[in-house]
Amino acid sequence: MRQQVDPYTEMGALLWQSKEHALLFENLAGHSDWTALGQAVANWRHAALVFDTTPDRLIPTFAARLRERVHPVHVSDGPVKEVVRRGNEVDLLSLPLHLNCTRDGGYYITSGICVTRDPETGQSNAAMYRLQVHDQRTTGFMAAPNHHATQHRLRYEERGEAMPIAVIVGHHPAYYFAAASTIAYGDDEMALAGSLLGEPVPLVPCEVVPLKVPADAEIVIEGYVPPAERRPEGPFSEFQGYYAGEHGPQPIIRVEVITMRRNAIYKSLQNGVRVEGNVYQEVPCCAQIYQTLMGAGGRLDIKNVVMLGANFGVVIQMTPRYPGEAMNALACAVGGDPTHAKILIAVDEDVDPTDPLDVWWAVETRVNPQEDVTILPGVYVNHLDLSGRQVIVPGLPTRPRIGSKMLIDATKPPTCDTEAREAFERSRPMGFGKILLADFLNA
Amino acid sequence: MRQQVDPYTEMGALLWQSKEHALLFENLAGHSDWTALGQAVANWRHAALVFDTTPDRLIPTFAARLRERVHPVHVSDGPVKEVVRRGNEVDLLSLPLHLNCTRDGGYYITSGICVTRDPETGQSNAAMYRLQVHDQRTTGFMAAPNHHATQHRLRYEERGEAMPIAVIVGHHPAYYFAAASTIAYGDDEMALAGSLLGEPVPLVPCEVVPLKVPADAEIVIEGYVPPAERRPEGPFSEFQGYYAGEHGPQPIIRVEVITMRRNAIYKSLQNGVRVEGNVYQEVPCCAQIYQTLMGAGGRLDIKNVVMLGANFGVVIQMTPRYPGEAMNALACAVGGDPTHAKILIAVDEDVDPTDPLDVWWAVETRVNPQEDVTILPGVYVNHLDLSGRQVIVPGLPTRPRIGSKMLIDATKPPTCDTEAREAFERSRPMGFGKILLADFLNA
Repeated sequence: MRQQVDPYTEMGALLWQSKEHALLFENLAGHSDWTALGQAVANWRHAALVFDTTPDRLIPTFAARLRERVHPVHVSDGPVKEVVRRGNEVDLLSLPLHLNCTRDGGYYITSGICVTRDPETGQSNAAMYRLQVHDQRTTGFMAAPNHHATQHRLRYEERGEAMPIAVIVGHHPAYYFAAASTIAYGDDEMALAGSLLGEPVPLVPCEVVPLKVPADAEIVIEGYVPPAERRPEGPFSEFQGYYAGEHGPQPIIRVEVITMRRNAIYKSLQNGVRVEGNVYQEVPCCAQIYQTLMGAGGRLDIKNVVMLGANFGVVIQMTPRYPGEAMNALACAVGGDPTHAKILIAVDEDVDPTDPLDVWWAVETRVNPQEDVTILPGVYVNHLDLSGRQVIVPGLPTRPRIGSKMLIDATKPPTCDTEAREAFERSRPMGFGKILLADFLNA
Repeated sequence: MRQQVDPYTEMGALLWQSKEHALLFENLAGHSDWTALGQAVANWRHAALVFDTTPDRLIPTFAARLRERVHPVHVSDGPVKEVVRRGNEVDLLSLPLHLNCTRDGGYYITSGICVTRDPETGQSNAAMYRLQVHDQRTTGFMAAPNHHATQHRLRYEERGEAMPIAVIVGHHPAYYFAAASTIAYGDDEMALAGSLLGEPVPLVPCEVVPLKVPADAEIVIEGYVPPAERRPEGPFSEFQGYYAGEHGPQPIIRVEVITMRRNAIYKSLQNGVRVEGNVYQEVPCCAQIYQTLMGAGGRLDIKNVVMLGANFGVVIQMTPRYPGEAMNALACAVGGDPTHAKILIAVDEDVDPTDPLDVWWAVETRVNPQEDVTILPGVYVNHLDLSGRQVIVPGLPTRPRIGSKMLIDATKPPTCDTEAREAFERSRPMGFGKILLADFLNA
C-alpha cells in the first residue's frame, strides 16, 4: 500500500476490513523509515497456505503437527543481529505502533512473542502477551495469573530477581500459531514451531539476557521484568470484541537491547473477530478439539472443526452414523477446549462450517430445539466471557467465571437411517459450484 | 448479460450466485426472441429501493403500507394487450422457463401471481403458486389445502365448474410482495399492491376469463382449472432449501390465452435461501412480526426485524429497557408469524441483524444459555419444516407439523442497568465505517 497510512487513526480500520488480503504498509505517517505488515494471515485460507494445505484439511493437518516436536538447532549468528541498538539507542516509540481500537489504553505491541524461562528447570516458554508501550524503553507486561510466563515471573520474584525476557516481533506465522497453542508447562513452543514449520528453529543467543531467540526473526526486544514494579495498564480491545480484560497496575519490561534485520518489517497485528489475532487463536483451539474428538470412543467421523468468530462458538462438521451420536460428540467437544467451547453446533458434511449463514441455515432447518438442543449449566467459561459470573475462590489466583454452554445438533438424521437422511438432501441448481457468474459477467 | 445462457443448465446457478445484482439475460439458448430478468429484487437493499427507503427502514415502511389499501382503478386497455395469443397459438414451452434445482420434477413458472375469485362473493385473491409446465397449453396448479385459491377451487368444484384463473408473469416487485403477504380471506391483494406502489393498480378485463389483471403487466396467462382432473406434479425445490413439498397428483390449468407486452420480459424467479423468491416471503413475514411487536404491551423499542435465510429464523433488533424485556418480546414474536418464527434471536442496537456472523457473535458473547435461552415445546411449525412431526387431524385438510421453537436473548443488559450495559460496549478501530480500505487500495 503506497498511499500514506497513519498508524494511529487509519491502520486499525484498514486491517479490520482486509478479510481477504494481507496489507503491506510502505508509507507510514511519522515512520517513513518503516514498512509494516498486517493480516498475514488474514483468514483460514491464509492459515492453510502456511501449512501447505487446503482450508478443509487445515485442522487435521495442524492437529497432526501439534502432536510432534522438532527440536531447535543452535547457531551463533543470524539476520536478526544485523542491527543492534543498545541502552539509550533503544526507542520503542520509533516503531510504527498502531492503535487497535478507540478505547485502548494506548499503543500496544500486539505481535510480541514473549520468551521466558523457568529459573529452576531452565525450560522456556513462548507466548503472546499484550505489551503496552509506556515510553522509549518501557512496556507493560500483562499475563494472566495462570499463564506460564506469570509462573516464571513469580518464581523470579520469590528470589527477588528480575525476569529476563526476549520478545520476538515479526516472523513466519508458524511461530504465532505455536505461541498461541496451549501446551503443557515446560513443553517447548520452539520445538512445536519446528514441527509446524517442518524444520528446526535456528536459535541464537540474545545480546544481554540469558535466552535464545530465532536467528531469522524480524525484530527481537530484550529486557527484564523487575520484581516489584507496577504501572497502570489497559484497557485493551480483546479478541471477542470487548474491552473485557484487566485494567490496572501490571508488571513492566525494561528494555535493554533491540536487535533486528536490516529493513526489518514491523508486524502490525490487529485483534478482534475474524482478523489476524483470532486466526492464531482459533486454529490451535480447533485442532485441540479435533484431537479430543478423534480420541473419543466409537471412532467419530469428524470432517472439520471451526470457530464462529468470537472464539466462544465452535462448529463441528461430522457425518453422524447413529441416532444421538452428534450430541455425544458435542458433549465431548466441551471438554476439548473448556475455555472456548461455549456455543457448540454440529453440522453435517453438506454444510460449510466456515459460512455463518450456512450454519444458521442448518440450525433453522435441521433442529427441533426440544430434542436437538441441550444446555449445560454450572460450567466454567472463559475468564473474558462477560456472560459468565465471576467467582472468587480462596485457592485460586485467577477469577474464573461460571456460566453455561449450549449444544446444538444441527446434523441430518444419521447414515443408518437412509430414508430420513435423504429427505434432508439440499436442493441445488444445476451447475452449482461449477457455472460461475464471474465467467459470464466478464465475457 | 450478453453471453449466451442456457435456461436449463446455467440460469439457475447464475441467479443463485447473484446476491448483489439483478441479471438481465439478453441471449437465451433456444429462446433467442426472449429477454429474461431475474434477481430483481436480489436482496433487502433492492427491496428497500422498491419502497424508496433504506434497508434499516424497510420493515417499518412496509408494515405501515401493509395496513393501508389503495383500491384499483378500472381501464379498458393497456400494454399487456399488445400481443394476444389464443388457442393453438399458445405455447408455454416457448417461454424461457428455467430449471430451479436439479431434482425438480420439471420446468416451473415460478413467477406466476395467480388471480382467482370466490364464485359466491366475487372477492378475488392473488398469490404465487408453483406452476409446473406439463405441455404447450397445460400447467400444474399446486396450492396447499389452506390457501385461499384452493378454497376458491373447491367452491367451483362443488358446483362442478372449472375455476377461471389469470396468471400475471412479470411486473413491478410490489406485486410480488403483495402476493406473498398473508392477508385475510377476501381482502384484495391488488388493493394492497396499490398501497405498496403508492398508486392504484390499473385493472383491465381478461380476454376469456371473468377476471381482471394489471393492464401494465408483462405477461398474463388466462385459463381454467377443471374440477376433477389431476396430473403428477413435483417435486420442487422449496424456499428453505429442500424438496420438501408435495409430490403427487395435483390440479391443472388449461391455458386459453396469453396476452403480453410487445418485447415482454420474462421474469425468471429463483427460489431458495437468500435469492429472490425468499426476499418476497421474508419482508411481509418480518413486517407482520414487527406489527405484532409494535402492538405489544409496554411499548417495546423495536429497531428492526429480519430473517436469517431459510425463513425459519427471525432476528429482532431492539433496545431492551428492563431486565427480561427481550425474552417477552421473543415470546410475542412467536405469535407474530407462527408458521415461520422457529429460531428467534433478539439482538441489540449495535448488532447488524442482517449479518449472520454478527448475529452469531451476539449469541457467542452475550448469551448465558441457562438464563437467556428458552425452548417452547409442542407448538406447530411450518408444514414444510422437516424438523417437525407431521400429524393427521380428522378435522383438517392440511397435515400440520408439531415441533418446538427456540428463543435466544442475545441483547446487552437493559438501558436501566447503565454500568452492566457499558461493559458490553463493542471495541472498534478508530475510523470504523469511515476509513475505507477501497479508497486506499485504489489510490
